[in-house]
Amino acid sequence: MSALALIGAGLAAAGAAIGGAIGNSLVISKMLEGMARQPELSNQLRSNMFIGVGLVEATPILAIVVSFLLVAKG
Amino acid sequence: MSALALIGAGLAAAGAAIGGAIGNSLVISKMLEGMARQPELSNQLRSNMFIGVGLVEATPILAIVVSFLLVAKG
Amino acid sequence: MSALALIGAGLAAAGAAIGGAIGNSLVISKMLEGMARQPELSNQLRSNMFIGVGLVEATPILAIVVSFLLVAKG
Amino acid sequence: MSALALIGAGLAAAGAAIGGAIGNSLVISKMLEGMARQPELSNQLRSNMFIGVGLVEATPILAIVVSFLLVAKG
Amino acid sequence: MSALALIGAGLAAAGAAIGGAIGNSLVISKMLEGMARQPELSNQLRSNMFIGVGLVEATPILAIVVSFLLVAKG
Amino acid sequence: MSALALIGAGLAAAGAAIGGAIGNSLVISKMLEGMARQPELSNQLRSNMFIGVGLVEATPILAIVVSFLLVAKG
Amino acid sequence: MSALALIGAGLAAAGAAIGGAIGNSLVISKMLEGMARQPELSNQLRSNMFIGVGLVEATPILAIVVSFLLVAKG
Amino acid sequence: MSALALIGAGLAAAGAAIGGAIGNSLVISKMLEGMARQPELSNQLRSNMFIGVGLVEATPILAIVVSFLLVAKG
Amino acid sequence: MSALALIGAGLAAAGAAIGGAIGNSLVISKMLEGMARQPELSNQLRSNMFIGVGLVEATPILAIVVSFLLVAKG
Amino acid sequence: MSALALIGAGLAAAGAAIGGAIGNSLVISKMLEGMARQPELSNQLRSNMFIGVGLVEATPILAIVVSFLLVAKG
Amino acid sequence: MSALALIGAGLAAAGAAIGGAIGNSLVISKMLEGMARQPELSNQLRSNMFIGVGLVEATPILAIVVSFLLVAKG
Amino acid sequence: MSALALIGAGLAAAGAAIGGAIGNSLVISKMLEGMARQPELSNQLRSNMFIGVGLVEATPILAIVVSFLLVAKG
Amino acid sequence: MSALALIGAGLAAAGAAIGGAIGNSLVISKMLEGMARQPELSNQLRSNMFIGVGLVEATPILAIVVSFLLVAKG
Amino acid sequence: MSALALIGAGLAAAGAAIGGAIGNSLVISKMLEGMARQPELSNQLRSNMFIGVGLVEATPILAIVVSFLLVAKG
Repeated sequence: MSALALIGAGLAAAGAAIGGAIGNSLVISKMLEGMARQPELSNQLRSNMFIGVGLVEATPILAIVVSFLLVAKG
Repeated sequence: MSALALIGAGLAAAGAAIGGAIGNSLVISKMLEGMARQPELSNQLRSNMFIGVGLVEATPILAIVVSFLLVAKG
Repeated sequence: MSALALIGAGLAAAGAAIGGAIGNSLVISKMLEGMARQPELSNQLRSNMFIGVGLVEATPILAIVVSFLLVAKG
Repeated sequence: MSALALIGAGLAAAGAAIGGAIGNSLVISKMLEGMARQPELSNQLRSNMFIGVGLVEATPILAIVVSFLLVAKG
Repeated sequence: MSALALIGAGLAAAGAAIGGAIGNSLVISKMLEGMARQPELSNQLRSNMFIGVGLVEATPILAIVVSFLLVAKG
Repeated sequence: MSALALIGAGLAAAGAAIGGAIGNSLVISKMLEGMARQPELSNQLRSNMFIGVGLVEATPILAIVVSFLLVAKG
Repeated sequence: MSALALIGAGLAAAGAAIGGAIGNSLVISKMLEGMARQPELSNQLRSNMFIGVGLVEATPILAIVVSFLLVAKG
Repeated sequence: MSALALIGAGLAAAGAAIGGAIGNSLVISKMLEGMARQPELSNQLRSNMFIGVGLVEATPILAIVVSFLLVAKG
Repeated sequence: MSALALIGAGLAAAGAAIGGAIGNSLVISKMLEGMARQPELSNQLRSNMFIGVGLVEATPILAIVVSFLLVAKG
Repeated sequence: MSALALIGAGLAAAGAAIGGAIGNSLVISKMLEGMARQPELSNQLRSNMFIGVGLVEATPILAIVVSFLLVAKG
Repeated sequence: MSALALIGAGLAAAGAAIGGAIGNSLVISKMLEGMARQPELSNQLRSNMFIGVGLVEATPILAIVVSFLLVAKG
Repeated sequence: MSALALIGAGLAAAGAAIGGAIGNSLVISKMLEGMARQPELSNQLRSNMFIGVGLVEATPILAIVVSFLLVAKG
Repeated sequence: MSALALIGAGLAAAGAAIGGAIGNSLVISKMLEGMARQPELSNQLRSNMFIGVGLVEATPILAIVVSFLLVAKG
Repeated sequence: MSALALIGAGLAAAGAAIGGAIGNSLVISKMLEGMARQPELSNQLRSNMFIGVGLVEATPILAIVVSFLLVAKG
């Protein structure tokens, strides 16, 4: 019973890592691009980037929570 | 019976993490792009982005709910 | 019998999350793009975006319903 | 006998969700693009978009029907 | 015997949904693009689009028929 | 013996639906594009499109025939 | 013995449908593109297209023959 | 023993159909493109295309031969 | 029980490595691009890049933690 | 023992067909493109193309040989 | 128990190799591109590249550690 | 014991055919492109192409050798 | 126990070969491109390329080490 | 025990063939491109290409060595 739960945990963690890291990097590289083009907007872009990263992280963090739950069940 | 439910939970959580994170990052990077091009529209763009993120999150959150249900069944 | 139903539920939920989130984000990022280009059309674009999101959500929501049905069967 | 039917139901629902949501979002994002370029055509574009969404939804809705049939068999 | 038929039904329905929805959306989005560029041709484009959608729907509808046959066998 | 035939039927039907629908939509969207660019050629383009659609449909229809044969064997 | 032959038949038919339909549609859409650009060459392009479609169809038709042979063995 | 041979036959036939059809269509669509650009070279292009199609067909025909051998063994 | 946990650990580690490395490299290559274009902004870009890398690393590090947990369970 | 050899034969033949046909078609379509641009080089291009096709065919033919060996073992 | 751990080790090592090598090569090729465009910045670009490579290597090295742990368990 | 070796032989042969044929065709099509642009360099380009093809063939030929070894073991 | 270790070894070696070869070729082709554009920088570019290749090789070499360890365990 | 080793050998050989051949062809086609653009640099480019090919071949050759080791174990 618990053995398959541990594979599920690995699957959820892998999905969260790939989704979250690539999603975040898309947002942050857009910020760096905008900042290199208009340096005077860097504070505004960075503060909006923090909001965006927080929103992007929402579902990966939930998937990590699912993953810990599955490890606890294993 | 419950062991396969836990794999299903991991699958649903992984799908939610990938879908939600990449979907959100597409919306937010468009916002940063528009903001770097027209800084005077940043309030309008950010408020519309919040609406968009809320709408994008709809089905991933439901998939997370399905995932918690499956964990509870496991 | 019910164990496989739970895998099916996870599969349907993952498909709904990926399809719905990416579909919605395509629509919303087009709206933000149009809004940054022509700010005076923002009300018209946003109201049409709500119609579009409602239409895009149609089949993912149905897949979530299928997923809840399968959980109830599990 | 019925257990595999439930996997088939999840498969059909996932396919319908992905196909329908992405197909619709392609149509609707074209509409928003055309509308941002020529605001005076927005009524004509929206009414044609409704026809298009109805046509795109045809086969996903049928797949959802197949999915409900399979759930009923499970 | 019939259990595998139901997986086949789900497979055929999923293929029909993805193929039909994406095929139709390619045709319809071309129509909206042409219509936004030349509004005076909209009647001609829409009537040709109906012919095209009918032709595109041919094989997905047949796959749906196969799917219903397989459900009836299940 | 016949159960696997039914999976084969679903597979052939799915392949026919995807191949036929996407193949046809490529041809028809080229027609709409050419028609929007040169409206005076629309009759010539439409009649050639009918020939093209007939030729594209050849192998998907044969795959549908194979699919019906397999259903009859199931 | 014969059950697996029927899966092989479905596989060959699906491959033939996808290969033949997409291959043909590439050829025909090139023809429509050339015809929209130079209407006076339409006869020459169409007759060469018929030769091309015949050559493209060669291997898919052979795969369909293999598929019928496998059905006859099933 | 022979049942798996028949799956191998289907696999080889599907590969030959996809490879041959798409390979040929690339060659032929290049020919139509060159012919639409320079109509006076059409004879030279067509005769070279026949050589090219013959060379492209070499390995798919051999795969079809392998496929018939496998059917004969089944 | 523990054997499958070790496969899950490998899966999570592989996902974390791919996600984290490619996500980070997207951010850093944007920084180098901006730095080559505007060398006077290099301090600002580098400090923002450190923030971005920290945020990108969040979910891969969590997946590595899950992976160590699974190894400890094996 | 021999049954699996026949699947291996099908696999090798399919790989040879796809690799050889697509590789050859890339070479030949480049030749037709160069010939349409500079008709006076057609002899030189064709003779170099024959060398190229011979070199491209090297490994697919060897894979076909492996495939015949496996059929002879089956 | 230990046999599956060794497959997991291979999986983690493969993921680390692919992720780390491709991530690093993206960073380094950007550096060479910037260096060829502005040779006077080569020291600055190289030192920043070393920081970037160190950050990119973080998660692949951790995956390699997981892989050695799994080998030690096998 | 030997049956699985024959599948491995097919796998290695298929990989060698795809890798070698596509790798060679990339090199040769570059040669034809350069030759069509600068006919006076054709000898130099062809002799360098022969070196390149020899280097590209190195690992596919080794994979073919592995494949023959595996056939000899089967 | 040891048999699965040998599959893991093959997997790790394949991943290392693909990752390392493609990663290195990206770096080296950038160097050749920069060298063809600015021949006077060739020494600087080549020495930086050696550093880059060394860094790219890091994780594939570690994966090869894991692979030898697994062979030694088999 | 040894049977699975032979599949692993085939896998490693296939990966080495694909990785090495495509990696090499990228490097060599860049060399031919640079040589066609600047014929006076051909010696410099060719000697650097030999260095690059040697570096690219490193990990595929190691994978081939792993493959021979696995054949020797089979």
